[in-house]
Amino acid sequence: MALSEFDLIRRYFTSFQQGPAVVTGIGDDCAELALSPGHTLFTSIDTMVEGVHFPKNPDVNGLGWRVLAAAVSDLGACGAKPLGFCLALTLPEADERWLSDFAEGLAEASQHFSIPLVGGDTTRGPLCLSVQVFGEAPAGKALLRSGAKVGDDLWVTGTLGDARAALDVLEKKNPAGSERHFLQQYYRAEPPLSFAVGLQGVASSAIDLSDGLAADLGHILQASKVGAELDLESLPLSDALMSSYSAEQAQYYALTGGDDYQLCFSASVEQRELISDLARTEKLRCTRVGTITGSGELAVKRGSIDVDLNAYKNKGYQHFS
Amino acid sequence: MALSEFDLIRRYFTSFQQGPAVVTGIGDDCAELALSPGHTLFTSIDTMVEGVHFPKNPDVNGLGWRVLAAAVSDLGACGAKPLGFCLALTLPEADERWLSDFAEGLAEASQHFSIPLVGGDTTRGPLCLSVQVFGEAPAGKALLRSGAKVGDDLWVTGTLGDARAALDVLEKKNPAGSERHFLQQYYRAEPPLSFAVGLQGVASSAIDLSDGLAADLGHILQASKVGAELDLESLPLSDALMSSYSAEQAQYYALTGGDDYQLCFSASVEQRELISDLARTEKLRCTRVGTITGSGELAVKRGSIDVDLNAYKNKGYQHFS
Repeated sequence: MALSEFDLIRRYFTSFQQGPAVVTGIGDDCAELALSPGHTLFTSIDTMVEGVHFPKNPDVNGLGWRVLAAAVSDLGACGAKPLGFCLALTLPEADERWLSDFAEGLAEASQHFSIPLVGGDTTRGPLCLSVQVFGEAPAGKALLRSGAKVGDDLWVTGTLGDARAALDVLEKKNPAGSERHFLQQYYRAEPPLSFAVGLQGVASSAIDLSDGLAADLGHILQASKVGAELDLESLPLSDALMSSYSAEQAQYYALTGGDDYQLCFSASVEQRELISDLARTEKLRCTRVGTITGSGELAVKRGSIDVDLNAYKNKGYQHFS
Repeated sequence: MALSEFDLIRRYFTSFQQGPAVVTGIGDDCAELALSPGHTLFTSIDTMVEGVHFPKNPDVNGLGWRVLAAAVSDLGACGAKPLGFCLALTLPEADERWLSDFAEGLAEASQHFSIPLVGGDTTRGPLCLSVQVFGEAPAGKALLRSGAKVGDDLWVTGTLGDARAALDVLEKKNPAGSERHFLQQYYRAEPPLSFAVGLQGVASSAIDLSDGLAADLGHILQASKVGAELDLESLPLSDALMSSYSAEQAQYYALTGGDDYQLCFSASVEQRELISDLARTEKLRCTRVGTITGSGELAVKRGSIDVDLNAYKNKGYQHFS
């Protein structure tokens, strides 16, 4: 294993596409990025650890995609347009097959989300991947968690719970049918970035669904000092999820499962048509799932019946509890 | 250990000072930073892994300082002014004593380098720390590796080799005298940031000394397509290093030892007085150690005698060879 740190970077990570914002890319002490005039920088870091965020024997190509998709999802949650990302790659050894598969999946995601790799760090150690993303939005136009107003609609994009269902089949040798669908959703998450940019000035608050709807929505409620009423029956579920689990189990996964990397946002009732038009343009499923209330709490219903929240809420993934 | 991920962040990482560039700090999906008009963004990520970049039982307070110092050093190498940083913290468990010591050292460095903590990620897993720093410089004024010209002086700041000497005493129970000095240099590195900003328009190229002078200077030579002649006798050594090692060993450590986080830069002969004045103002030692040549290679001399480069060059730390 004579692959040096610099050979490794040159061989696997310098052929990535570059972008218009990149003044100086990989190869100096820092990457240099130019923002558009009147825009502010949005940035977020996301770490994935073997055995915690992905299985010991993952689909390595899928992992390359997923680690970037999870990080750009935070840009989407702010309505920020991607500019570039850095990768901190900690590896037990420079396994060339692993690196080639990983770099391929990462490059596909980099192209798909129009976000160039601009720098990073490679170190030896237990497998651990950190991705820092950079994006921009016009100053004052970003989607924050704190703007939800009583009476606003509550929306989610895509379908929920599929990534949670993937955890049930992640180690399976020959997944079939629905199982393949779940794994596809898990490894190839597609946060709706350009839809999110379109929500600037439309949504009143937004968050990405990484820890599960109940937990992530909780952050909006806390930051906006409001409550919400959510109808379990309205949660958008995939055919695969509905055919593989009982209705209650599927709803439970949709409410508490992490890693969907879809968007949850609030918007005033007046914006319904505009949001539906935007979703149609982006070929995106977008579903009203509830209402912002003044209660300060999350109330969950199944149709008109109250559901015991203790069985559902705060089930989002928590790293240290 | 009932400390949740959000409790952990709230308890240890939200009382950090904030800075003028921070529009939205910790607590949303992204941090939001405003750049000064006409400036570009500089960013770099640095990872430290237990057992690779620091010992199994480190000075945890020192580790908090060091992980940030190492990362801001890359901003200095570009002459960029700090704006903010993100921390990705992967921990086996939420040990409150560890977290409190670590956060304290990190906060001290954050204040010392005027760089606020603006975001991060905390995950469970093998101890691994990634710091991503953000800075700004006027567009086109940054110090890159590629500008060194034949005939330029070659300079380094501070003294070299002390951090390498620290590796010899890192596990020692009761360090004394020089050993304490080495450990201080190792854990409390002080990259000369404001001096580096002053080099904008003065230095022709720059790099920070993280992998050792021979290896890091090699990057300048490669990027600038030049060579250099370096005099071992001129390398700035601390009294502690000179009193603890033979002259040859001390020079070897200064030439090849990593983790000094000092600056190596080139500048035309006309800039000598300006550089000396700037160093005096910053109370910084700044030493001419050689000359940029057209040879395309690094030649090392001891006074007027050629030194066999194979014994010295490319000894910088390499993660995968």
